[in-house]
Amino acid sequence: MFKSFYLFLGTSFISIFSFSQNNDSVIIKKISDEIMVNSTAYENLRYITKEIGPRLSGSVNAEKAVHATARMLKEAGADTVYLQPCMVPHWIRGKKETGYIELANGENYKLNLCALGNSVGTGARGVKSAVVEIKSLKELDQLGVAGIKGKIVFINIPMNPTYIRTFRAYGESGIGRRSGPAQAAKYGAIGVMVRSLASNVDEYPHTGATQYNDSFPKIPAVAISTKDAEWLSNKLKLKMALKGYFRTNCEMLPDAPSYNVIGEITGTDHPGEILTVGGHLDSWDLGEGAHDDGAGCVQSIEVIRSIKAAGIKPKRTIRAVMFMNEENGSAGADKYLEEAKRKKETHVFALESDAGGFAPRGFSLQMEDSKRNKIMHWKNQFINYGVYELLPGGSGSDIEPLKNIGAALAGFAPDSQRYFDLHHAATDVFEAVSKRELDLGTVNMAAFIWLVSEYGL
Amino acid sequence: MFKSFYLFLGTSFISIFSFSQNNDSVIIKKISDEIMVNSTAYENLRYITKEIGPRLSGSVNAEKAVHATARMLKEAGADTVYLQPCMVPHWIRGKKETGYIELANGENYKLNLCALGNSVGTGARGVKSAVVEIKSLKELDQLGVAGIKGKIVFINIPMNPTYIRTFRAYGESGIGRRSGPAQAAKYGAIGVMVRSLASNVDEYPHTGATQYNDSFPKIPAVAISTKDAEWLSNKLKLKMALKGYFRTNCEMLPDAPSYNVIGEITGTDHPGEILTVGGHLDSWDLGEGAHDDGAGCVQSIEVIRSIKAAGIKPKRTIRAVMFMNEENGSAGADKYLEEAKRKKETHVFALESDAGGFAPRGFSLQMEDSKRNKIMHWKNQFINYGVYELLPGGSGSDIEPLKNIGAALAGFAPDSQRYFDLHHAATDVFEAVSKRELDLGTVNMAAFIWLVSEYGL
Repeated sequence: MFKSFYLFLGTSFISIFSFSQNNDSVIIKKISDEIMVNSTAYENLRYITKEIGPRLSGSVNAEKAVHATARMLKEAGADTVYLQPCMVPHWIRGKKETGYIELANGENYKLNLCALGNSVGTGARGVKSAVVEIKSLKELDQLGVAGIKGKIVFINIPMNPTYIRTFRAYGESGIGRRSGPAQAAKYGAIGVMVRSLASNVDEYPHTGATQYNDSFPKIPAVAISTKDAEWLSNKLKLKMALKGYFRTNCEMLPDAPSYNVIGEITGTDHPGEILTVGGHLDSWDLGEGAHDDGAGCVQSIEVIRSIKAAGIKPKRTIRAVMFMNEENGSAGADKYLEEAKRKKETHVFALESDAGGFAPRGFSLQMEDSKRNKIMHWKNQFINYGVYELLPGGSGSDIEPLKNIGAALAGFAPDSQRYFDLHHAATDVFEAVSKRELDLGTVNMAAFIWLVSEYGL
Repeated sequence: MFKSFYLFLGTSFISIFSFSQNNDSVIIKKISDEIMVNSTAYENLRYITKEIGPRLSGSVNAEKAVHATARMLKEAGADTVYLQPCMVPHWIRGKKETGYIELANGENYKLNLCALGNSVGTGARGVKSAVVEIKSLKELDQLGVAGIKGKIVFINIPMNPTYIRTFRAYGESGIGRRSGPAQAAKYGAIGVMVRSLASNVDEYPHTGATQYNDSFPKIPAVAISTKDAEWLSNKLKLKMALKGYFRTNCEMLPDAPSYNVIGEITGTDHPGEILTVGGHLDSWDLGEGAHDDGAGCVQSIEVIRSIKAAGIKPKRTIRAVMFMNEENGSAGADKYLEEAKRKKETHVFALESDAGGFAPRGFSLQMEDSKRNKIMHWKNQFINYGVYELLPGGSGSDIEPLKNIGAALAGFAPDSQRYFDLHHAATDVFEAVSKRELDLGTVNMAAFIWLVSEYGL
């Protein structure tokens, strides 16, 4: 590590800071110091990932996490903490999944695979057939019934490594997982293997929801690891992969009762104007849901705690929400909107953290220009804490319904380079989260929420 | 993960990109695509960390790394590859270090410790005495000979967690490790325990060089883990820690022969104008020297490879340098300057990557204003690849001597949040490096080097 670097940067940091010195920056510095020294977000994250674990909607763990985060919100000093009941889809993975490729040399190559979320299971016998590889969903139409019927379709659409923003690659390639199984069913496929949506090449399969189309049969679908996808593609090219087999035991049970978890600081001047800050409490079941989205939950709780602990009395009501069921249904988000409408609440602003607990880079702003222009005036407040990007964009799927009642929306946008190495996989665990990165994200979220609570939009 | 985010960001990314679309950005995109798809940096890093390992100056591993990186530079397509001999300090840690705290209840608490680099050893009997804690070096002067003589001084200066730029905290607290042992010796201390310079609290000790003062005795010095430092501070407060003991077996051997490793692409129009891009090949011995500074080495090699592979012919000479002995002597840096002077080379620019292989945030610019202003015109080229910060600051200790011959200097400044969790510790291993973060850093380094090769400064 080079020795002279810090001396200069230290100086330039101070001068930038002095430049924007004013009352707002003093208060934000107070919030920042409170978080960087006393944050409980990392310990809360450890609790929900290590003591509880994965939190699939409808599971016992999800229920435990409801009560744990309600407790954390109380400990954080929220004025009011309550649960908002909602019915959630209850998909379960069932017993261990398995699968292999039958090779021309008589051997079976065992695949690293997992059922896609919401997928039907194969039944005890599994599915077995020749494997047809496609590189885009268009190829399904080209192959048609003649090429697809009775076969297992292998959808091999890698994430584009040249995109600097990994979410762009996820969006493009993700169509294979989301719509591929339904499209393949249209032409008579009996099963689907999807290349995991991952930016690295390793042995971990990545799950995630697939969406069936009611016009076609529901066929079982799995993700295979990127390493296996590369291997399989090569073996198919060499005509060495004869057949594929997999067996999954997942099923959709009847809807189950669950909750959004909500904690509030009541605003002093405009208690009826609500600012929501949230993440989703449910997670996929393969890892611990640490980055997706334990991080967003504990950050939202920490926004409440840090503002209380810093002795700040916000003018508008700040509400931290742990949304349930983002991953496979959005039942919590729907219920939150429904209740907001029923109670005729005024939602000024909502901010979601659901892109991982990585170092902050920016916020994505989904709102009319006049509000965005107001936010752009706060830009220097964020630059002190590493956030440069305030770009028009989407926000988060839990808060997006609130646009229907006029809320301005924002999505926390941390650095995205590591996210899709672990997203929806067994590697999304507590150890993959850096305490300082997590906390620095919260600093920016809390600053944003405080600025809106003080000045409105 | 929220579903709509990427759609918006994808769009906004395209519009930013179109905005700065010109010939330079086309060439930089070509370099970026080459790196993001075909980079060998991660595999080269795996080789020097996993196949070779730690690379302390004068060690067999350092020698292996010299030959390995020379080979990598040839494979990268460098026009010329050569070794630049230099004599380096040869400090060795020796047999396993050990130490404990003797408690009032009769038990011994084993410490996680390591000798500081360049420290003398204790001899076979070790050192044992009462422990005096200080929170700043000023306290040494206050305690004086009466308070210090014959004791072990425990220097407990935590890194300030409220500084957003962790290098600032490292610089401030680092004085304890760098100067503390010499200062304590002045008042007759027989040994020093320094709290590890780490931003997290865990069980790993972090080494790093200490600097003796020839006016005072050389006393043995160790770092203890941050967890042990917190524990020890508490036990001293409670009067429960009676004595400290440690034994180290380190020693400074005679200087050893070693090398800087150099590979060049000869410039087409101004071959005599040299642009240096480098990192340091030596590392501390506890981990694998992955972030510090295997990353900087393999990035510098990749700058050469990507420019060659993209078919770009730079106008000025680009020289990748693996500097030897940054950590405990800077002998390689001194030799590099000496040779540059002897050959009357013209050094236009030098860029060092020695702050870890994390996601890029900026460059720190150490040069006169006129040159910096020219660079500021390239700012939009970097923003496309995640770099927003082009700030005045230091560069890197290997290249800094080149300011004496007029070179403009820059330091690559990746995100600093995770660096001091692992810096100089056993946790600085290959697995702590993200391929995409490493490669994206290289993209910005290569873009910078190419722009200077094309336009000068």
